[in-house]
Amino acid sequence: MSRPWWSAAVAQLDRDAMLEAQQRQSELTKPTGSLGQLEALAVQLAAMQGSDQPAIEAPWITIFAADHGVMAENVSAYPQSVTGEMLRNFSQGGAAICVLARHLGATLKVMDLGLAVPIRSLSNVEHRFIAPGTANFCRAPAMTTEQCLEAINVGQEAVLAINKADLFIGGEMGIGNSTSACALASALLGRPAALLVGPGTGLNKSGMEHKLRVIQRGLLRHAAHLRDPLAALSRLGGLEIAALTGAYLAAAQRGMPMLIDGYISSVAALCATRLNPGCREWMLFSHRSAEPGHTLVLQALQASPLLDLGMRLGEGSGAAVAVPLLRAACALHNQMATFAQADVSDRQPC
Amino acid sequence: MSRPWWSAAVAQLDRDAMLEAQQRQSELTKPTGSLGQLEALAVQLAAMQGSDQPAIEAPWITIFAADHGVMAENVSAYPQSVTGEMLRNFSQGGAAICVLARHLGATLKVMDLGLAVPIRSLSNVEHRFIAPGTANFCRAPAMTTEQCLEAINVGQEAVLAINKADLFIGGEMGIGNSTSACALASALLGRPAALLVGPGTGLNKSGMEHKLRVIQRGLLRHAAHLRDPLAALSRLGGLEIAALTGAYLAAAQRGMPMLIDGYISSVAALCATRLNPGCREWMLFSHRSAEPGHTLVLQALQASPLLDLGMRLGEGSGAAVAVPLLRAACALHNQMATFAQADVSDRQPC
Repeated sequence: MSRPWWSAAVAQLDRDAMLEAQQRQSELTKPTGSLGQLEALAVQLAAMQGSDQPAIEAPWITIFAADHGVMAENVSAYPQSVTGEMLRNFSQGGAAICVLARHLGATLKVMDLGLAVPIRSLSNVEHRFIAPGTANFCRAPAMTTEQCLEAINVGQEAVLAINKADLFIGGEMGIGNSTSACALASALLGRPAALLVGPGTGLNKSGMEHKLRVIQRGLLRHAAHLRDPLAALSRLGGLEIAALTGAYLAAAQRGMPMLIDGYISSVAALCATRLNPGCREWMLFSHRSAEPGHTLVLQALQASPLLDLGMRLGEGSGAAVAVPLLRAACALHNQMATFAQADVSDRQPC
Repeated sequence: MSRPWWSAAVAQLDRDAMLEAQQRQSELTKPTGSLGQLEALAVQLAAMQGSDQPAIEAPWITIFAADHGVMAENVSAYPQSVTGEMLRNFSQGGAAICVLARHLGATLKVMDLGLAVPIRSLSNVEHRFIAPGTANFCRAPAMTTEQCLEAINVGQEAVLAINKADLFIGGEMGIGNSTSACALASALLGRPAALLVGPGTGLNKSGMEHKLRVIQRGLLRHAAHLRDPLAALSRLGGLEIAALTGAYLAAAQRGMPMLIDGYISSVAALCATRLNPGCREWMLFSHRSAEPGHTLVLQALQASPLLDLGMRLGEGSGAAVAVPLLRAACALHNQMATFAQADVSDRQPC
């Protein structure tokens, strides 16, 4: 394969804007550091947006949906038809992410990459059929290399189609995708799946033990091919996970700040950093999922997410819930008075 | 003293609204529990507001400011004049809480209960002089009983004056008040001050060691009088801490949901629950402060705050930053489709 598009350099952060923002944070009428993570967040956004007045006025959310062949192994509390049913729920505006997008004034796009249970075409959903879901990774590679590349490219296209946005959020929907994400994370991190497996949408203990054995079978089957992140993604991932990976890579190249959602999204983010490490500096992390494997993935990404509310829904919902924290950080950064402006005494040596 | 006003019963939560909200949460198109703390939050707000459509449209923030006599012992990184200077900054709209209040569309009121360094009267600030700050608790009770009662009553008045609000946030400003709060928390919890002391606005290690010795001297001096929470508050607290305590008690009696800010505010909340345990059920907790003692205070209150961003500014700022999480919880609760409405399959037995 010729050098793929995603290995090209990501956009550069604006170091001058970053230094200026750091200086301003030290001059605002508060003890230095007393706004905690909100201070670093304002500085990061200033560097990403190249502005001394960072702002999140137009968030853009793209949800990628697809089915998973590994559902043949009975790894979810929900039937596979729910992926399509939830797509219809997205289309009609009733899902959590629809409510949050309206609440934030965000643009919401939904892309269907391939369902196992066919549905009629839906308004507000872009149908980009690649395959009727992935293959069962216990028996075959989840995707062919061509399918995986196509899904990555759909993610890139989704980001290139964004206009007038100042933040990108990727989300996912796919019954069974915590099984794929867990297998992929185990491969990328070189850690046992037992450390990463979780209940997903709500398996009980025996359901989780079964899910772990399914993942272990998949890892064993593909063991000879998991060193290369693209091969690991093709063999264990999902169409929506590959699309998210492509979207994150493209957002970093385009210089668009992104707010990463929960477990599945973070595994895609990890995969993106393995394909191009530079994209990490365009990522902000919204929340720590209740899914236990998320913590190891976040550690590998050196990420300290903003929220830890026990959420585990996906759809980009955790990232959407965190957007107001970015907005608060920007408002404080842009609008607070400095010690000099307000004629307030700064601290004494102590 | 005759039976004080704050011992009267608090308002009752609406149990029917609570049960109805719990039922609705189980019917929304998401795996049960997948919105984490946001689910419980929506249910609590439904119970507090007695509504199947809980909402935070009009938050009300009152900041109480006062000085602390214990500043004679040199316990802060900032000079005492900063309390008044920050009042002027509040008056002019340049402080963090002013920015956040505008950003949220919240009403902001500021009450000055007594500064050590007199200032001219300020617009947008209600001057309710009780004393030129407290006395130094190392040498005398911080407040007389009368001063403490007056401050508690000002807090009550502040809450009774609220019109058309659906959430109360109390905030505080007072250079030296983490020293008072630490001493009071140590007394109320019966735990050593060494477990609770922290850097406040930014003391270094030797400054913190000195602060601890000052607190220990105060605790020793008043040791015979600290069993009674009102006596502990009078002897170790501050005018603004007493006012916050009164405000929380009055808000619970009035049936107004409150969102508690950080360390100082939580110590006042703890004091309020000691004066009337019923008020606890009207409290929501916004964030875990970087001040180390906050964790013990939150434990005693059985509180799991929403945010842990390393904030330690006070002014009600942490609570203000958390308001959008309440709003998101309400929007999701009110607007998401149910499984039946969206015709989505619910989970299978697993």
